[in-house]
Amino acid sequence: MIENETIKHQLNHKSIRAFKDVSLSEEQLTTLLEVARHTSTSMFMQQFSIVHITDAKKRQAIQDVTALNYAGGNGDLFIFVLDLYRNQQIRQQSGNDDGRLHTTDIFFQALQDTVLAVQNTLNAAESMGLGGVILGKINDDPQKMVRLLNLPPLTLPVLGLQVGVPAQKPQLKPRLPLAFTTFENTYQTGFKATDLKAYDKVVRTYYDLRDANRRIDSFTHQINGKKLAKGWLKRDEIVTVLHQQGLALDFEGDGQGGAVD
Amino acid sequence: MIENETIKHQLNHKSIRAFKDVSLSEEQLTTLLEVARHTSTSMFMQQFSIVHITDAKKRQAIQDVTALNYAGGNGDLFIFVLDLYRNQQIRQQSGNDDGRLHTTDIFFQALQDTVLAVQNTLNAAESMGLGGVILGKINDDPQKMVRLLNLPPLTLPVLGLQVGVPAQKPQLKPRLPLAFTTFENTYQTGFKATDLKAYDKVVRTYYDLRDANRRIDSFTHQINGKKLAKGWLKRDEIVTVLHQQGLALDFEGDGQGGAVD
Repeated sequence: MIENETIKHQLNHKSIRAFKDVSLSEEQLTTLLEVARHTSTSMFMQQFSIVHITDAKKRQAIQDVTALNYAGGNGDLFIFVLDLYRNQQIRQQSGNDDGRLHTTDIFFQALQDTVLAVQNTLNAAESMGLGGVILGKINDDPQKMVRLLNLPPLTLPVLGLQVGVPAQKPQLKPRLPLAFTTFENTYQTGFKATDLKAYDKVVRTYYDLRDANRRIDSFTHQINGKKLAKGWLKRDEIVTVLHQQGLALDFEGDGQGGAVD
Repeated sequence: MIENETIKHQLNHKSIRAFKDVSLSEEQLTTLLEVARHTSTSMFMQQFSIVHITDAKKRQAIQDVTALNYAGGNGDLFIFVLDLYRNQQIRQQSGNDDGRLHTTDIFFQALQDTVLAVQNTLNAAESMGLGGVILGKINDDPQKMVRLLNLPPLTLPVLGLQVGVPAQKPQLKPRLPLAFTTFENTYQTGFKATDLKAYDKVVRTYYDLRDANRRIDSFTHQINGKKLAKGWLKRDEIVTVLHQQGLALDFEGDGQGGAVD
């Protein structure tokens, strides 16, 4: 394995869910935002924005949305927003139509821009000795997040990122062995769940600090369990919110994939 | 600005589009895959896979799809695949239904897993002194990519990543100033395209090695131009392919956002 400072942190990545009562310094903050700014962007369209949440009421509101006490708690909270509004404004203020901005294709490109920036920022934070956790649970109430951030059409909150000085030392969480997740040239479809027996055993040795230091369930049990169980969640409103925001309007399952007029 | 090895590379990120005729060593390859494996993953569901393309014919086929001579050229080519198939198999082989695997919500979580891993891998490559470029253009023909990689239902090619020893030294491409892309607490909607005048001027000083060393167009001209111009592209087939792969089946714009039965 090649070793250097960057890779050392990457191979040792653990989501941090408890932070000391310290906010980022101006220098740390600027560095993180500058790193995000330098992330690869599809077709140079630069289709994301970041909202730094410093207001106590908004932090509490986001804590409520996520039901996570560390989201909006100690440390700093960023919401990464997919943003086609800025480019729409450029077009409209030049007298142009919205072009392809309402297509699923461009929506996905913007979504990718946004998520790439999240990971880049997290890597920068970890390289400084800070910890962080990506907050997918801001999507537990997408409608509320849109209102809370005052988001205009053609934007969407994608992921949150809580960053700060770690106040816990979680174990390294064991991931699926590469044999199950990497392929050469062709996807191999003969996957047998029973081949995960050894991995399942390793997963059961992991202590999750989130849950009163209990060991966690095996991977296959988790996948078979409530995480993926059928049922409508408020998260499923994402479809409604997407279209309400004017995004991915051609995404109608009509089998045509036609562009939006 | 805080400086360390990781951040130095991040602030200096340039997409590399010409590589020396050298493949990754086994050690480099393993390190990159291990870094990808350790990326944050939504709800610990680990919903992506990587296909390393070493076969000359397949590399050529992907070069054809992307119409980029460096995609599948010198260096190594990886396709990052959103993968809900593995977890479907776990559920089915245990006698369970597919649960929420066909929802847009879970599709987005898997998409995020996949894109986070792309950026993490790129950061690792750059930390080793390698260069890389993210290949969104594998989506220029999503149907062909699915066939080429022999992808089963509930998988989708998301992004390619070409990595190798740089054979070019591009300029650092000037990004939108933070004032336009970062906000505190609330999104500011009063964006004026004319405020980009200074930035546009900076962008025009950038020489793009891709295009016979000509200076590039200003940012606002690019956004007003053909990149976003209306018209159906083969890329728009992504909607069809998504549903064909059994993904995001509730994404029908019916305003209900109901979960899939």
